[in-house]
Amino acid sequence: MTIQVGVLGGSGYTGRELLRLLDLHDGVEVSFATARSAVGSPTPIPGLSFTEAELDRAGSVDILFMCLPHGTAAEWVTAIPEGPRIVDLTADHRPGSGREAKAAYGLAELHADQVRDARLVANPGCYPTGVIFSLLPLLEEGLLDTGRLTVANAASGVTGAGRSPRTELLFAEVEANYKAYGEGNRHRHLKEMRACLEGVQLLFQPHLLPVSRGILETLTVPVVDGVTPAAIREAWTARYGTDGAIQVLSRGLPELRTVVGTDLLALGVSEVEGVDPPVATVVAALDNLGKGAAGQAVQNMNTMMGWPLNRAIRRTSR
Amino acid sequence: MTIQVGVLGGSGYTGRELLRLLDLHDGVEVSFATARSAVGSPTPIPGLSFTEAELDRAGSVDILFMCLPHGTAAEWVTAIPEGPRIVDLTADHRPGSGREAKAAYGLAELHADQVRDARLVANPGCYPTGVIFSLLPLLEEGLLDTGRLTVANAASGVTGAGRSPRTELLFAEVEANYKAYGEGNRHRHLKEMRACLEGVQLLFQPHLLPVSRGILETLTVPVVDGVTPAAIREAWTARYGTDGAIQVLSRGLPELRTVVGTDLLALGVSEVEGVDPPVATVVAALDNLGKGAAGQAVQNMNTMMGWPLNRAIRRTSR
Amino acid sequence: MTIQVGVLGGSGYTGRELLRLLDLHDGVEVSFATARSAVGSPTPIPGLSFTEAELDRAGSVDILFMCLPHGTAAEWVTAIPEGPRIVDLTADHRPGSGREAKAAYGLAELHADQVRDARLVANPGCYPTGVIFSLLPLLEEGLLDTGRLTVANAASGVTGAGRSPRTELLFAEVEANYKAYGEGNRHRHLKEMRACLEGVQLLFQPHLLPVSRGILETLTVPVVDGVTPAAIREAWTARYGTDGAIQVLSRGLPELRTVVGTDLLALGVSEVEGVDPPVATVVAALDNLGKGAAGQAVQNMNTMMGWPLNRAIRRTSR
Amino acid sequence: MTIQVGVLGGSGYTGRELLRLLDLHDGVEVSFATARSAVGSPTPIPGLSFTEAELDRAGSVDILFMCLPHGTAAEWVTAIPEGPRIVDLTADHRPGSGREAKAAYGLAELHADQVRDARLVANPGCYPTGVIFSLLPLLEEGLLDTGRLTVANAASGVTGAGRSPRTELLFAEVEANYKAYGEGNRHRHLKEMRACLEGVQLLFQPHLLPVSRGILETLTVPVVDGVTPAAIREAWTARYGTDGAIQVLSRGLPELRTVVGTDLLALGVSEVEGVDPPVATVVAALDNLGKGAAGQAVQNMNTMMGWPLNRAIRRTSR
Repeated sequence: MTIQVGVLGGSGYTGRELLRLLDLHDGVEVSFATARSAVGSPTPIPGLSFTEAELDRAGSVDILFMCLPHGTAAEWVTAIPEGPRIVDLTADHRPGSGREAKAAYGLAELHADQVRDARLVANPGCYPTGVIFSLLPLLEEGLLDTGRLTVANAASGVTGAGRSPRTELLFAEVEANYKAYGEGNRHRHLKEMRACLEGVQLLFQPHLLPVSRGILETLTVPVVDGVTPAAIREAWTARYGTDGAIQVLSRGLPELRTVVGTDLLALGVSEVEGVDPPVATVVAALDNLGKGAAGQAVQNMNTMMGWPLNRAIRRTSR
Repeated sequence: MTIQVGVLGGSGYTGRELLRLLDLHDGVEVSFATARSAVGSPTPIPGLSFTEAELDRAGSVDILFMCLPHGTAAEWVTAIPEGPRIVDLTADHRPGSGREAKAAYGLAELHADQVRDARLVANPGCYPTGVIFSLLPLLEEGLLDTGRLTVANAASGVTGAGRSPRTELLFAEVEANYKAYGEGNRHRHLKEMRACLEGVQLLFQPHLLPVSRGILETLTVPVVDGVTPAAIREAWTARYGTDGAIQVLSRGLPELRTVVGTDLLALGVSEVEGVDPPVATVVAALDNLGKGAAGQAVQNMNTMMGWPLNRAIRRTSR
Repeated sequence: MTIQVGVLGGSGYTGRELLRLLDLHDGVEVSFATARSAVGSPTPIPGLSFTEAELDRAGSVDILFMCLPHGTAAEWVTAIPEGPRIVDLTADHRPGSGREAKAAYGLAELHADQVRDARLVANPGCYPTGVIFSLLPLLEEGLLDTGRLTVANAASGVTGAGRSPRTELLFAEVEANYKAYGEGNRHRHLKEMRACLEGVQLLFQPHLLPVSRGILETLTVPVVDGVTPAAIREAWTARYGTDGAIQVLSRGLPELRTVVGTDLLALGVSEVEGVDPPVATVVAALDNLGKGAAGQAVQNMNTMMGWPLNRAIRRTSR
Repeated sequence: MTIQVGVLGGSGYTGRELLRLLDLHDGVEVSFATARSAVGSPTPIPGLSFTEAELDRAGSVDILFMCLPHGTAAEWVTAIPEGPRIVDLTADHRPGSGREAKAAYGLAELHADQVRDARLVANPGCYPTGVIFSLLPLLEEGLLDTGRLTVANAASGVTGAGRSPRTELLFAEVEANYKAYGEGNRHRHLKEMRACLEGVQLLFQPHLLPVSRGILETLTVPVVDGVTPAAIREAWTARYGTDGAIQVLSRGLPELRTVVGTDLLALGVSEVEGVDPPVATVVAALDNLGKGAAGQAVQNMNTMMGWPLNRAIRRTSR
């Protein structure tokens, strides 16, 4: 069985990555990809060029992906005729958006039941994907001490900020630089994290890395007395299994390049010496365009179609 | 007055940077720079070539800088005839080395009294320089809550690891990558930090950045109730002044490139929302080869000679 | 049908890339990959670890790939028992090596007849692959004026220099730098080029780029009066077809990132104004680890097995 | 004596670099620096903020530097009241602009006589600076064979393209990439080169490097029979001396990082084997923001003021 899919807003970094992924997926055929500023220019799919967005066309596919600028997907969802089921990669229907009631939130390994029958799936943000998958099993298993602060220091490549030209994203500004931003616990992704991690006191501090792709999140996790790295790994594998897109390292911490170009999320944990009460260092690594966006969108489509969750996802980095 | 100085081990990243700085300093003349593996090749100082190290020569200068591999400076100090005063840029005489009693520890703005008359000065490590200058005034002024954990997430460029060829430092390994190392609170710089920050519970987690130079340290600092960013800035400026090498930002957080190529340490602080008990985010930025090594070595020489602390240090990045 | 293959020297950049490619190829099973310095550590193929090289093991496969250091493959070829057919990715049996008579030279699209039945195939160098594929059809069709100089200015990423640690390949040496090397027309790849391009006066000047992967070669080609870009494109497509691994751009010049991560070679040509007698600018772009090494090795294996030339090669960059 | 200078358009890469340089120059005081889009924000000079451009203010200084967008300087020159002498860093008055008669062209080491008394100096382009200084002495001394083609393959960092945000200059587009542009001998700098190199047949092919700063130009120079590298070096040093801003390497070819951050131009030459009639490989390296822009502007100011040509220029890279 082959289904028809369409992509609205396909010329940004996320859109192009999604098109590359869909091209690898033998269950789908891409009917169209739109891009207002790139009409007529080639997409990453051989033989397919970008077109203008049209309501009728958008309504004619089985699954419609939205890679539009944040804030513009909501009206498209309203306008599009019944028909296609939608995976929205913008923030418009995520927890904290005010429109979350209209959509299933799609952390792929956690929300399959809601996603399966949803008309509209809100694809999670890149940062929340790493933080929530890291912490949720620890919270649920009672390993995390919610009485103390969890500190998430995150670092992301620049494609996370999109492809619209801005001075601060120029090569000569980013190269040889590194900086914190969204300081003061005010990043817009915090709402998503808090909605899924009730009771956790969280400080989230992102930084901009001089790399194109990839997110590494270093978490200082307050743990209940006696919690070992082994116990943390066990909580993760109990929830995610051992052969899916979430890879639990048996030792050490993941680094960026082993996940860049893949749809994997790698998790590692390290014991911390000389600190009392105890904390653990947890590191989550993912590609912001892979598991942090397009990869998870494909997982959600797989679930919506009743296919295996990890069909066609990429496991090998360059 | 011009003094004679010598550099042992001048061909690594720190040694070369120190030579560039000494060349800018009109109070010194560099008599020699040694480098076993580069004898005869040019130093960064016009007209000066690297030579073999010789005891007699080493003993003939006013100030001798040691940029040797860690672990090899101690025997040189013992072997060198009376005469030169020494600034040791290795870890051999720093707090925690077991030889700290033989040397004055040289955080330039804090230890001028001990450095002034010392025969041997232990030049601080790059990471401790940022962490200690950030926290010490807060600790002394009672702004830091020592009952809770202080988390220091640090990121450094690769020159911090030296110039000896190792696979993990190759361009193709570092580029497009980012990773934690020294995990589990086991980095060798922790002893230095702890010696200066008694009573502070500290978690120090370094990372390797795909940049050549620079350190950015993001600290989550537990503060006593009611402590504002303004109070933190005031504690810093009371200790360091406002026109020295330690620059306190009146707002925002420093980024890497504004300090790379300089001998400055920039400090910034941001209030943190939605966390109780309160914490502040403090960011320290410095060039690991500047204030983190050669720049502070020059400051220490300045103090030893009775010159102004910040004579000849660099204030403008590229 | 699935064949058994082995890789000698699999832990360098070329070896790892070849393993990734073989893992994508559903006609082969990788029996072993050797790496003296990495015995026991994981290969890029899930479940396969590096082993010591053993003659018996090496002799047990259908196809044996050699990714050894240059100069060490020749003795392996002599020592290995009859049995496996060999693709040698070193320079040991290439034109100009003195051992070229023992092997078929494997420019995949040009030498299929010789490769098909060869016991030993010399896989071409990365630079010659771009230069020869660019020029040979022009030479054969009489478009190139051999009475004048052809200038090939090439730029390569650092993986072309291998993974053995050398100071000049460290991140802090390569980043923000660019330089010529092999100056004076003395690069060892020139023999390979000259052997295939008889009568062409060639100046080959390589440079080192601050990128991990990829080669871009900018050729100034003296052309016979009246030769248009269209004629050059036609000579290429007549020789290589239009749907293979060699992609002829219908307009413009290729850039590095569209080929990195693929096994393609992209060719473009531009008319040159204001120069008489006339020249054309030809640009060839390839991944030095793809079409420049592992990709072409897989093409040669495909030919040796009677499979389609381009089975399992990669066409989409990231 | 201290003169008053002003900078129109100081917030781009060239403008900021010029301000840094002027701050190091003890003969000048910077009265103002304008930047329409950055009014009120700090310049690289401590204590000086960017202002709006005003005619009266512009007319009040001794020397006025124009770092405006190309095409906008000409009307400023017309509008500004008599008074200041002007160094125009745009292309508006360079050879080939149609307005060259109004200005002295300022290749600093070559045109001091014209610059000394000029009211308006056209500061040369970055690419022509390297090409012309390389070739002119060879042309004048009859070493260059003008009957054959001179090929200049150039590579530049991205600051050469300015600081206005454009998609193609984003970090994620430039990093890990390399490409030719201005193909077909159509780059706008060619007019400048041709005006100074009469009789030379020139092919100029620029490329974009993934670095922030620096230009490396690799020239294939047809030489008269019997011309040695020594003869070429002698022609250069006879023209430029041995202790100025143009450094002739006694052996080898210059690389990018030894000139980045300086106001030097480094020249090297290499013999070429196996080519007949003979050619030489010449490499010129400079910082596009240094000798290629701001550094040469300061040299021109020095000449206009009767100061030593190389007063305050930078000789040491990081």
